[in-house]
Amino acid sequence: MGVGEVCERARRVATAVARSSGEGREAALEGMADALVASRDEILEANGADVAEAVERGESRTVVDRLTLAEARVESMRKSLEAVAEQPDPVGEVVEEWTRPSGLTIQRVRAPLGVVAVIYEARPNVTTDVAGLCLKAGNACILRGSSIAHRSNQAVAAALRSGLGAAGFPADAVQLVGDASRAAALELMRSKGLVDLLVPRGGRALIKSIEKNATVPYIIDGDGNCHVYIDAAAEPEMARRIVLNAKTQRPSVCNAVETLLVHERLASDWLRGCLEELAAAGVEVRGDERARKAYPPASEASEEDWATEYLDLVVAVRVVDSLDEAIDHINRYGTSNAEAVVTQNDDVAARFVREVDSGSVFVNASTRFSDGGEFGFGAEIGISTQKLHARGPMGARELTSIKSVVWGTGQVRE
Amino acid sequence: MGVGEVCERARRVATAVARSSGEGREAALEGMADALVASRDEILEANGADVAEAVERGESRTVVDRLTLAEARVESMRKSLEAVAEQPDPVGEVVEEWTRPSGLTIQRVRAPLGVVAVIYEARPNVTTDVAGLCLKAGNACILRGSSIAHRSNQAVAAALRSGLGAAGFPADAVQLVGDASRAAALELMRSKGLVDLLVPRGGRALIKSIEKNATVPYIIDGDGNCHVYIDAAAEPEMARRIVLNAKTQRPSVCNAVETLLVHERLASDWLRGCLEELAAAGVEVRGDERARKAYPPASEASEEDWATEYLDLVVAVRVVDSLDEAIDHINRYGTSNAEAVVTQNDDVAARFVREVDSGSVFVNASTRFSDGGEFGFGAEIGISTQKLHARGPMGARELTSIKSVVWGTGQVRE
Repeated sequence: MGVGEVCERARRVATAVARSSGEGREAALEGMADALVASRDEILEANGADVAEAVERGESRTVVDRLTLAEARVESMRKSLEAVAEQPDPVGEVVEEWTRPSGLTIQRVRAPLGVVAVIYEARPNVTTDVAGLCLKAGNACILRGSSIAHRSNQAVAAALRSGLGAAGFPADAVQLVGDASRAAALELMRSKGLVDLLVPRGGRALIKSIEKNATVPYIIDGDGNCHVYIDAAAEPEMARRIVLNAKTQRPSVCNAVETLLVHERLASDWLRGCLEELAAAGVEVRGDERARKAYPPASEASEEDWATEYLDLVVAVRVVDSLDEAIDHINRYGTSNAEAVVTQNDDVAARFVREVDSGSVFVNASTRFSDGGEFGFGAEIGISTQKLHARGPMGARELTSIKSVVWGTGQVRE
Repeated sequence: MGVGEVCERARRVATAVARSSGEGREAALEGMADALVASRDEILEANGADVAEAVERGESRTVVDRLTLAEARVESMRKSLEAVAEQPDPVGEVVEEWTRPSGLTIQRVRAPLGVVAVIYEARPNVTTDVAGLCLKAGNACILRGSSIAHRSNQAVAAALRSGLGAAGFPADAVQLVGDASRAAALELMRSKGLVDLLVPRGGRALIKSIEKNATVPYIIDGDGNCHVYIDAAAEPEMARRIVLNAKTQRPSVCNAVETLLVHERLASDWLRGCLEELAAAGVEVRGDERARKAYPPASEASEEDWATEYLDLVVAVRVVDSLDEAIDHINRYGTSNAEAVVTQNDDVAARFVREVDSGSVFVNASTRFSDGGEFGFGAEIGISTQKLHARGPMGARELTSIKSVVWGTGQVRE
C-alpha cells in the first residue's frame, strides 16, 4: 500500500478515534498490550531475521543493540503500553476556564490532533510507544520505521492492530508504511491536509530533509548537546555522582551530557578527582586551558568540541568564572534539550532555571531524566528541541491541540 | 536599516527583555501608553498623509477605513496597551507541577519565546497591539507593516520606542522594518535562528508565500469561513439575534459568519423571518433548495459558496436534517476559526463543542466574540487557524514557550 492510501485511511478513521471514549481507548491500549504478549514468538522470530541481516550487512554494534528484541524488551514494551493506558485521559481536559464581564464562560479544552506520523530509526520499541501515545490522545497514527527493522515492525504492528480490532477499534488507527524508501518518506512529509503532525526521530539528514521538504506541521526531535554546570556552591559528592551518571550511564542517547562547565573555585582538587574518575570509566577528556591544568592528561578542546554532541564516551570541560559565563556558554552552544546545575545556592538555581534557554533544566539531578518515561508519561513521542507547541519530552498531552469552548446565554457583540 | 540588521538588533536585546521583571514590563507598557498620547498630534498628522495618499491612489473604502486614525482610535490603542499591562505576567507562570516516585519535582513553566515578528496590513493599531503583547510576554518584536501605512506606523513606533526608553528598556525591543518591499518580507521569513516566531496577518498571497518560503517557525492567522448552526431546540428569538449579529455587525472581519446551517424543523417560518430580516439589513442570501423554498428571493448556492469567506454582506444558507449533517458540513468546509451552535439541548451543545474541529466553538453566542480583546487578552496577535501551539485568539500567553524545570536532591538514573 502506498503512502497516499495509508494517509487516506488514517484520515478516514481519525474521526472515530477522536470521538471514542477515554475508557474505550484505555481498553484498546490494554488489548494492544495483551496482543503484544500473545504474539511474542512471532515478534522475536521476525526480529531475529532482522538482526541476522543487520549483522551480515556489518551494521554497528549500537544499531544492532537498538534493533535487538528479547523477551525482556517485549515485556518492557508491554509495560509502556500499560503505563500509557493508566495515564489520565487528555481528551476533553479543561486546562483553563474563566468568565468575562459579558457573562461568557471561556474554557480551553484539549482535543485530539487527528493524524500523527512518526519517522524513526531501528528501534522496534518506538512502534509500541508511538502507537500507544497517539491512541491515548485520540489520534490515528502512521508509523514509518527503518528498513533495517521492517520485519520486527511489521510483526509488532500486526499485534497492535489485532489488539485494536479486538477492542472494537478500527485497525487502521495504527498503520505501518511498508515502503521504507526515501521517496515514501518525502511523500509523507508532503501529505498536507492528511497529516496533522509529523515527528521525525532520526539524525541530521532526516531533520534537514523535513525542514526543506515538509508541507505538514512538524516538531523537531533534534540533537542533545547537553550541559552540566557545577556551581561554586555545589555539594562536591553530589556533583561527582551527577556528572558520572549524566556522562557514562548511557552515553549514546540524546540526554547524556556532552560538556561539563565548572566554577573556577572547584577547578582544582574537585575537578581533578572528577575527571580522573571519568577517565577511569573510559571517558576521553577534552578541556580548556584551566581544565587541562587541573587534569593534564586531557587533550585540548577546540571551538568545535563545544558544539559537538559526541553520543560517546567523550566529554568537553570548561572552567568558568561565574554563573553568567556558564549560562552564556549553554545558550550559545546548547541545542535546547537538557541542562543541569549542581548547587546548594537557591539564587543560583533560580537564575539558572530562568535564564538557561532549554527544553528542560535540572537542579541537582542528572540530565538523563529528560525522558518521557522518567517524566511519568509512560513513554515518549520524542524530545522536542523547538519552542512552539511543546518543548522537551512529549507524551500524550503533547499530541493534543487546545481549542476554546465558549458558553453563552444569547450574547451578541455590540 | 535592512532586515538583517533589524533582526540582529532584536536578538541582541531579547535576552534583557526576557530577564526583565514583570513589574518592569508593566511599567514599560504604561510608559508606551503615555508616550502614545503625548505623540498624538504627530501620529494623526502622519496618518493624515498616509490617508491622503491612499485616497489619491484609489484604495477601497475598506482599506481607507482600516488605515484612518482619529483621536478616538488613538485612545483605544492606548486603552489596549493599558489592558495588556494589567494582564497577569505570563513569564514564570507554573502551568503544572507534579512529583515523581524518584522525588523529582517537575514544573512546566512559561518562558518568553525570544524574538517575535509580525507582518501585517494597513491597520496602525496592530502596531501597538503587537508591540504591547510581545513586551508583556518578555519578547522583542519586529513589526513589518504595509507601505500604505508607513508614515503612521513610523510615528506610532517612534512613540512606543520613546516610552520604552523612558522606562529603562532598550528601544530596540520594538522595531519597525522600514523597507516594505517583498524582498524584505522574504528576508524576514528566512531569518532562521534570529526570529523565534513569525505571525502573518494578511491575505492568502502572504500565507502562501510564508508556507513556501519561511524557514522560521510561524503560526498562520488564516481565513474565517465561520458557521452558525441553528438546532431544532434553539430558542427562536435568540437564534435570530445571534445570526443577525454574527452576519451584519461587522461583515468585513474574519469572525463574521459566512454560512448559516438550519435544522429542517426551523426551515419554514423561522428561517423565512430570519432571512427576510437579513435581506432588510442589506444581506444577499444564497441558499440550497430547501432554504430557497422557505425564502424564494434567495439565489442558488453553489459548492463554491460553502467554501467562501465573503467578508461582505452575503450569506450562504443550508437546511440540514441533523446535528451530524451540520458537524460534517462544518468540518468539511470550515477554516478552523469560529463556529456557533444555538440550542437549548445540552446534549446537542456537548456534541457540537466536542466534534466540531475548530479553534473556537460557541454555544448560544455570536462568533463575533472570537477575538483577543473579547477573550480578555487586552489585544490580540492574531487568530490561529492551525492546531499546533495555539488555536483561536492569541494573547500574551500564546507568545511564550513552556519549559520543564526539574528540582532534585542529587538524583541520578539507575
